[in-house]
Amino acid sequence: MKIIISPQNTYIKYLVQLKDKSRERKKSGLFLIEGHREISLAIKGGYKIKTILFFPDLFSIDQLNDLTSQPIDLIEISKEVYQKLAYRDTTEGILALAHTKSNHLIDLKLANKNPLILVAEAPEKPGNIGALLRTADAANLDAVIIANPKTDLYNPNIVRSSVGCLFTNEIATGTTIEIIEFLKANHINIYCAALRASVNYLTQDFNKPTAIVVGTEATGLSNEWLENSTQNIIIPMQGEIDSMNVSVAAGVLIFEAKRQRDFK
Amino acid sequence: MKIIISPQNTYIKYLVQLKDKSRERKKSGLFLIEGHREISLAIKGGYKIKTILFFPDLFSIDQLNDLTSQPIDLIEISKEVYQKLAYRDTTEGILALAHTKSNHLIDLKLANKNPLILVAEAPEKPGNIGALLRTADAANLDAVIIANPKTDLYNPNIVRSSVGCLFTNEIATGTTIEIIEFLKANHINIYCAALRASVNYLTQDFNKPTAIVVGTEATGLSNEWLENSTQNIIIPMQGEIDSMNVSVAAGVLIFEAKRQRDFK
Repeated sequence: MKIIISPQNTYIKYLVQLKDKSRERKKSGLFLIEGHREISLAIKGGYKIKTILFFPDLFSIDQLNDLTSQPIDLIEISKEVYQKLAYRDTTEGILALAHTKSNHLIDLKLANKNPLILVAEAPEKPGNIGALLRTADAANLDAVIIANPKTDLYNPNIVRSSVGCLFTNEIATGTTIEIIEFLKANHINIYCAALRASVNYLTQDFNKPTAIVVGTEATGLSNEWLENSTQNIIIPMQGEIDSMNVSVAAGVLIFEAKRQRDFK
Repeated sequence: MKIIISPQNTYIKYLVQLKDKSRERKKSGLFLIEGHREISLAIKGGYKIKTILFFPDLFSIDQLNDLTSQPIDLIEISKEVYQKLAYRDTTEGILALAHTKSNHLIDLKLANKNPLILVAEAPEKPGNIGALLRTADAANLDAVIIANPKTDLYNPNIVRSSVGCLFTNEIATGTTIEIIEFLKANHINIYCAALRASVNYLTQDFNKPTAIVVGTEATGLSNEWLENSTQNIIIPMQGEIDSMNVSVAAGVLIFEAKRQRDFK
């Protein structure tokens, strides 16, 4: 087994680039995953692992057997190398280099004939995407679609903040126009969370094929969405500020749909 | 009017301490607020402003008249001083030094005979408290109570992430024991979000005086809460991971209560 001691090692520097730079991830089709649970969820979600790096003081090689029977390159790393690659406070001593998926809209599998989908347009913060993915996992949504993404899905802040839900959801990305066409072609009702020409979300029937669409906190949804929606909906705001966190608003709308569907 | 040019000025260094250190805020009873809207919400919420600092290239002194008729110390500051005190990317050129409030449970005003209250025990992240406060404002909750807080409410990350909702909500802090006593004394039903011995949140009637209680993402609620609850409730989780962001979960529960109450 290979052992890497020096954080100045060329390969380690390359991994740091992969962590920090979207461009490098796109070029290589590779990204880093940290943590035992996250790696096993990625494997379960059909991600192919290329290499596992572990720091033996924190992670025992015996635990690897639980993880996968795939043949995987193994590299033992030093504390210094591990600290350079890891982002966590609570460290587990294990990282994986994995192949990205395409996430093209065309590859999206909708097994359910009556799907419930979340669409988020251009979410600003990786942390918000992570929270949306956690909600989508909890609600067992049929898909999460990111319109006009500002970063690739394999941004380490998304991987981290999703606590593995990046790997448990059906996810696609695309332009707003592509996604609207996809939803219309699949006869899925489009409910846009918006302030303009909107009705109370509680008046709507989410028992039919449904996409709940949320925009950015700063500017909301683009006109393309508002003009192509089945109905614009609003959560009545009764405070001074009329501003909820986008992942909280999405959660409220999704779980109202789940309530109407009896959580089926 | 006083003008401060040097970021090395002793008073400016003192303000930086106030920004960075809970201890300094507690000792002096003062904290910093950034942004025009935030400052005007604080004034509207009854906070007393001691000093306003502004960088004239970004903030015109004429705008101050809109803000308040209170007599306030005014200090013009340089770009360097402003950058040292401000945390924002989008900068407005105005900061206020304000007096903290006590936030004792005993001072909490419950105007509504049938209150809807959010309690959060020991939230880990200032950003989560900010999101909870935004939801509480949107839902016009009667109060937000933080049990066993890990930081003072005037932590700059709470001030910032609440986008002013720190000032629009009735807020109190206390120990878990004190808060349970307060809720029981006021005949408020206690609904604890918990995994243990819990029923689906949709089975409960939130039309009566209601406190929705959420714990930390890592360890949930302490036993004191679970043993003193009217009912432990759960949002059914149907995914792989069973983990929603705490502010999303709180939002789902609060807006179910709002739905049952017809948003009244």
